Amino acid sequence: MSDPFVVVGADAAGLSAASKFRREAPDRDVVVFEMGRWISYAYCGMPYFIEGRVERMSNLLSLSPSEVDERGIDLRRGHKVVGVDPDAETVAVETTEGDSFEQPYDDLLVATGGRASTGSFDVRGVDGAFTLHNMDAAAAIDAYIAEPDAYDHERADVSAVDRERVERNAAMPAPETAAIVGGGYVGVEMAEALSGRGLDVHLFHRSGHLLSDFGEAVGERVETELDAKGVTVHTNAPVVELVGDDRIEAVVIEGEDPIEADLAVVGVGIRPNTELLDGTGAELGEGGAIRTDEYGRTSLPDVYAAGDCATAIHAVTGEEAWMPLGLTANRAGRAIGATVAGDPSPVGEIAGTAVVKAFDMEAGRVGLVGDEAARDAGFDPVRETVTAGSRSGYYPGAAPTDVTLVADRDTGRLIGGSIVGPDRAAIRIDTLATALEADMTVPEVERLDLAYAPPFSPVWDPILVAAKVLNGTLDGQ
Amino acid sequence: MSDPFVVVGADAAGLSAASKFRREAPDRDVVVFEMGRWISYAYCGMPYFIEGRVERMSNLLSLSPSEVDERGIDLRRGHKVVGVDPDAETVAVETTEGDSFEQPYDDLLVATGGRASTGSFDVRGVDGAFTLHNMDAAAAIDAYIAEPDAYDHERADVSAVDRERVERNAAMPAPETAAIVGGGYVGVEMAEALSGRGLDVHLFHRSGHLLSDFGEAVGERVETELDAKGVTVHTNAPVVELVGDDRIEAVVIEGEDPIEADLAVVGVGIRPNTELLDGTGAELGEGGAIRTDEYGRTSLPDVYAAGDCATAIHAVTGEEAWMPLGLTANRAGRAIGATVAGDPSPVGEIAGTAVVKAFDMEAGRVGLVGDEAARDAGFDPVRETVTAGSRSGYYPGAAPTDVTLVADRDTGRLIGGSIVGPDRAAIRIDTLATALEADMTVPEVERLDLAYAPPFSPVWDPILVAAKVLNGTLDGQ
Repeated sequence: MSDPFVVVGADAAGLSAASKFRREAPDRDVVVFEMGRWISYAYCGMPYFIEGRVERMSNLLSLSPSEVDERGIDLRRGHKVVGVDPDAETVAVETTEGDSFEQPYDDLLVATGGRASTGSFDVRGVDGAFTLHNMDAAAAIDAYIAEPDAYDHERADVSAVDRERVERNAAMPAPETAAIVGGGYVGVEMAEALSGRGLDVHLFHRSGHLLSDFGEAVGERVETELDAKGVTVHTNAPVVELVGDDRIEAVVIEGEDPIEADLAVVGVGIRPNTELLDGTGAELGEGGAIRTDEYGRTSLPDVYAAGDCATAIHAVTGEEAWMPLGLTANRAGRAIGATVAGDPSPVGEIAGTAVVKAFDMEAGRVGLVGDEAARDAGFDPVRETVTAGSRSGYYPGAAPTDVTLVADRDTGRLIGGSIVGPDRAAIRIDTLATALEADMTVPEVERLDLAYAPPFSPVWDPILVAAKVLNGTLDGQ
Repeated sequence: MSDPFVVVGADAAGLSAASKFRREAPDRDVVVFEMGRWISYAYCGMPYFIEGRVERMSNLLSLSPSEVDERGIDLRRGHKVVGVDPDAETVAVETTEGDSFEQPYDDLLVATGGRASTGSFDVRGVDGAFTLHNMDAAAAIDAYIAEPDAYDHERADVSAVDRERVERNAAMPAPETAAIVGGGYVGVEMAEALSGRGLDVHLFHRSGHLLSDFGEAVGERVETELDAKGVTVHTNAPVVELVGDDRIEAVVIEGEDPIEADLAVVGVGIRPNTELLDGTGAELGEGGAIRTDEYGRTSLPDVYAAGDCATAIHAVTGEEAWMPLGLTANRAGRAIGATVAGDPSPVGEIAGTAVVKAFDMEAGRVGLVGDEAARDAGFDPVRETVTAGSRSGYYPGAAPTDVTLVADRDTGRLIGGSIVGPDRAAIRIDTLATALEADMTVPEVERLDLAYAPPFSPVWDPILVAAKVLNGTLDGQ
């Protein structure tokens, strides 16, 4: 027990693990290597920073380096871990200053995160074309949108920021039209953000419904909302080319004329950063992520992985899944910190719970919403979508709320669901997430004693209405 | 099967049962006897009608008599059922016209509801003193509050209303100060309603915390909110006397000088209406309500009971409980309708889920919140209350949310909880209600995959924060 707990990556999973470990094992050492300058930022807040709803980039800071220090964590920024020797139990480290050394570990956590995948596009070197995957990109987009003489240089008020990139973008002429490639939740959030900045926004989505993972009912209402707020939504519109030499000029949908854009945000997907374990024999799993067990252990002894680079167990299927989301990373990191400190703690299963805001519309999803995912997991999905009021009909603010529930035909078990509506719809998904994780059947959901009071819910909550209807369908088979 | 399904009482439970029965057994008859003129009104909406947020009393109508007719239900208003002969399987009926007859039944549902208990007070005959237990009272209070020449006679736009009482109250001078006796949820809702009508409101509560069933954390924040909005809250203030001969003049707290009031609303409690079964041998249970089993059956053959007059099974204790609430009544009625029609359906357990709005504050509670209730049920309660943000800290609208979780010390099982805060706090109680009904432990709650997105929840939802803290307490014992 003489060597430290070594953590690679100083973001949600890594710092959660290091913090928990120090609290549980105050006499032992933990070293966190971070290749970059940024640590512990709220990446999910980037669209709201760009929108201007969040005034300063520093508002998105969760933990400062000095706060990490105060926790007794040995944080080394500018330190890239380039190799792992699982037999010797050492990692090879290179610093931005050009030094390199070997660091022995007792336990190792790989929390290297993910990176934006831009598909076949290369946005590097094209002004006005961005991926939104780190704070430097967010700062650059924000600066690029501003009129050169109106940019508030205090916006990106963090020392870690790539100041040169920010100032270069701030000096460029402000864009008027924006193209967002990809209608997942980041795309939808960016559509709201860029609209809020006064841009004429086009959102391009490969398939027929935005937010594919949320199901059709959500996709349709979010599309209607974006449309009502002036965003031009292009569905079944795979973007095949970004046009522009030095600066972005247009995007091209397959088979159509180019559509002008002087800002493009490309977010096709995310890929796990697993290269560090190449050649170590560590197993990879779903999505090419590092395979982990219920305690976050990889196939290598004393090596853990957590966050966007690691797999997890899905609460509905009981199978391995890869779903990079913020809570999962924090929770897994924290559990691994406890386990390494001597208190074995499961990292918890994931239910794929996600929520998104699109202007005045809110949506949530959980579990297996699409038929394909359900069938792949061996279920025979039956679904119903209902529209019900969010409050008693006579109470001001009551709004139509669509609930979709998906059940397995044979067992009646709830396996997924979604909710969409303008009135406090998103947070209601937590009820379904809890029901899913408890392996409830649809009849059990129908009998839940959910809250009723006119300002908050009708007598029959929309979730109960949906369960009632789906139950009827299951009964009537 | 030649005699009809007879239902006594045309409110939530009764009409839910009759409607479901007709849908499931369209060839069989159902007769609903209602002693009064009102049917199927949203009683929970009364405070909002009085406040003026709901414009017309007819807005609170769920089903009109003609809609009930259209469902094929034989509804007889002005028919009081005065006796049950369980051997002959008949009920004795008296009409407001003075007729009387025997009605045979195949199955009988007693859905006679409850009545306001005013403790030792008699509000009858004192102008300006009211209980809030039916629509006539709501219409009278509304009329009494208005200036005589400013009363909108269209407000109580329902033929069933006691027009004479309304007009008599409308003609009285408008009150300026109001005393509400009882700080349960109706009292709190009425404080908001009467404040909204411009009255100087005093709310009197017998014990130290408003909303006693919701726990101290809720009581304190709701009291702070009422205070901030100009309501004078008197805790530890049992009202012992209403002063006034013809018209209310003041209320008296034990040992103190009278406090002037020219409107008093007294709502000490509610009692189940069980007299119909006196002498039949039907068993009574908790709260003096009619004892029912998991299918809503009483101890008499072919006689069911549901709604505010009947007991139910508590989801946490598995024991009999009496908790008169709207969803319980609707759900039990519906299940009994199905059972009588030949599809045996459990009425469902109750978790005691309740939510309340107090101006800009929202609260919810579920399960066993108080120590006494927990100990009575054989648990050894451990509790923690945390204050956590409702959204990411940097996102506008984030507000402190207090979550209290109560667990059983030995098993770690979640047995109750409450939530209070101004930002979408109430609806979050559904997550705890679901966890309770699934018999989850606190570690299981801590591992729930709840939603995270900056506009809706921080990475660690307040419920997860509370579970984390309570878990630490349970671990550290």
